[in-house]
Amino acid sequence: MKPSLFKLNAAILSAATVVGEKEHEGPLSAHFDFFNNNDRFGQKTWEAAESEMQRMALSAAMSKASVSPEEVELLLAGDLLNQCVGSAYGLLSYDIPYLGLYGACSTCAESLLLASSMVTAGFVRLAAAVTSSHNAAAERQFRFPIEYGGQRPPTGQWTVTGAGGFIVAHGEGHAKPPLAYVTAGMPGIVLDPGINDANHMGAAMAPAAMSTLLRYFAATDTTPKDYDLIVTGDLGWEGGDILCDLISAEGYDLSPNYQDCGRMIFTKNTQDTHCGGSGCGCSAVVLGGYLLPRLADGSIKKMLFMATGALMSPDSIKQGNAIPGVAHLLCLESPTVRDTATSKKE
Amino acid sequence: MKPSLFKLNAAILSAATVVGEKEHEGPLSAHFDFFNNNDRFGQKTWEAAESEMQRMALSAAMSKASVSPEEVELLLAGDLLNQCVGSAYGLLSYDIPYLGLYGACSTCAESLLLASSMVTAGFVRLAAAVTSSHNAAAERQFRFPIEYGGQRPPTGQWTVTGAGGFIVAHGEGHAKPPLAYVTAGMPGIVLDPGINDANHMGAAMAPAAMSTLLRYFAATDTTPKDYDLIVTGDLGWEGGDILCDLISAEGYDLSPNYQDCGRMIFTKNTQDTHCGGSGCGCSAVVLGGYLLPRLADGSIKKMLFMATGALMSPDSIKQGNAIPGVAHLLCLESPTVRDTATSKKE
Repeated sequence: MKPSLFKLNAAILSAATVVGEKEHEGPLSAHFDFFNNNDRFGQKTWEAAESEMQRMALSAAMSKASVSPEEVELLLAGDLLNQCVGSAYGLLSYDIPYLGLYGACSTCAESLLLASSMVTAGFVRLAAAVTSSHNAAAERQFRFPIEYGGQRPPTGQWTVTGAGGFIVAHGEGHAKPPLAYVTAGMPGIVLDPGINDANHMGAAMAPAAMSTLLRYFAATDTTPKDYDLIVTGDLGWEGGDILCDLISAEGYDLSPNYQDCGRMIFTKNTQDTHCGGSGCGCSAVVLGGYLLPRLADGSIKKMLFMATGALMSPDSIKQGNAIPGVAHLLCLESPTVRDTATSKKE
Repeated sequence: MKPSLFKLNAAILSAATVVGEKEHEGPLSAHFDFFNNNDRFGQKTWEAAESEMQRMALSAAMSKASVSPEEVELLLAGDLLNQCVGSAYGLLSYDIPYLGLYGACSTCAESLLLASSMVTAGFVRLAAAVTSSHNAAAERQFRFPIEYGGQRPPTGQWTVTGAGGFIVAHGEGHAKPPLAYVTAGMPGIVLDPGINDANHMGAAMAPAAMSTLLRYFAATDTTPKDYDLIVTGDLGWEGGDILCDLISAEGYDLSPNYQDCGRMIFTKNTQDTHCGGSGCGCSAVVLGGYLLPRLADGSIKKMLFMATGALMSPDSIKQGNAIPGVAHLLCLESPTVRDTATSKKE
């Protein structure tokens, strides 16, 4: 047994979200900080638009936390673009030490896991985690340029145009309650369930999500009932059902408190996204815009956030490889619970 | 002033290196563990060959440290391929929690910096860092397929076919001396000096290397004289000279103890690599095969290892962007010094 369970004591001080037009038309519209009606964000290319979204997300997250760039000691960032240029160019204007990450759509959880680890250990006082994806940039890189008008199969998902920025600090010593505490984390094991259809990502990632959840339940001696919400990143309608089916065979009933960011961000039948949203930006903006405020106000007390990633490339698929999946987990707790408990003790 | 200096207490227990034909013909030939004469490593594609090199490097590093895969609690890995598939597929056969990194050619230092941080903080007992690059896979992705026979300009560098695997543990409690201790680390700030020639990477990365070095000297109150060796990852002949020139204007003379892995791995005038080696694998195999054994036997007492990365993509260059550079630093110390000092104290 190798749980790799990280006991963390970190606080997410702020989150900022930037989305595109379609996300702005979705059910979570009111919860995002910025949107742009043509997804261009004033830039000449989709890739530059994605970089601009990262810059905006970080800038706004720092403002919300009343933190200056000089105070942030570490940036952890990533995206889906080849060589992660969305992050490299997007955050270039900040003189903050930068570690680039690649976890495909799991990057939001990976960046928060590492940021929380580094502040818990005291290596830095403030870290920022930034993640993004852009539909038009991702489509032309992974499938076809949008202008080509390719048909998408029913199991296909819609890469979210979105960026999320988070400011993370040590869990102790906050006069003002943070949005949420990060109390534990668990990096995922890469699994290859043999799916080789790049339009069926949910199926490729669901076994990895189950693996991380089972490891986490075992390591913490908890069950789904111990959490108000268990949310995956972008398994979508199909992959989420696969996860619930697979894990029920292991004796766990996820269905009462399971959700998926890819399901939450779009309206199922009217937005034509087929199986729901995907992309690094999907879980980043749903977490930052919708879930963290619910943790902050106590309507969610304790939840598991598990961003899922498919670690393939267009070339690896063409070379006949299947799609390996990975899922990184964070346990998030509401300040309304913890800070009350602390006050009572005092 | 924001030093982001991480005080680390980690030990590199073992390192294993895998190289291709040209690297095997170079001056460090005798120091590498494995080579393959046609760079294919028994695989059908260059990308699969790179994955196989990663698998071999990790497998051998675990063997050398007498560590089983079950004992390794975290993998930190990356490479140059789109979506980092070299690492994702290469390490798929291991059931070890995996965090993917992208730092271009700085990835070796980034992975060791994070691995050292995670073991220092006690989140995991044993972590593995694995990095690779493959000349043929990189050439066709970043420039032209080798069969095209493109001419390389004098400032061009040769992507090393190589993979390095490292096993990292906490710095205390080793009955047998490790190869080296990691006593400090510093993540780099991304800088864009305005170079837009993908065949002049050394110039694009040299200012980032200088920035990290200056931050480190200031934060630790040391000068180049305090180290037996200061080695960069892959600035090559041209970029290394640029770094020495730039930093001399800041009052530091690097030249007496400066080296660059890209210079060390190939013979300057006979191997036709122009400005020397590059790629994530370059610094990984020179560190793992040549430098760590020198630290282990005490012929190097204390050194700075600073892998340098160019965070561009072929698309970002075509879209008119310049090449941002980054350099992450590690301070490595010989066990012959530290363990003697510890014994004396006792």
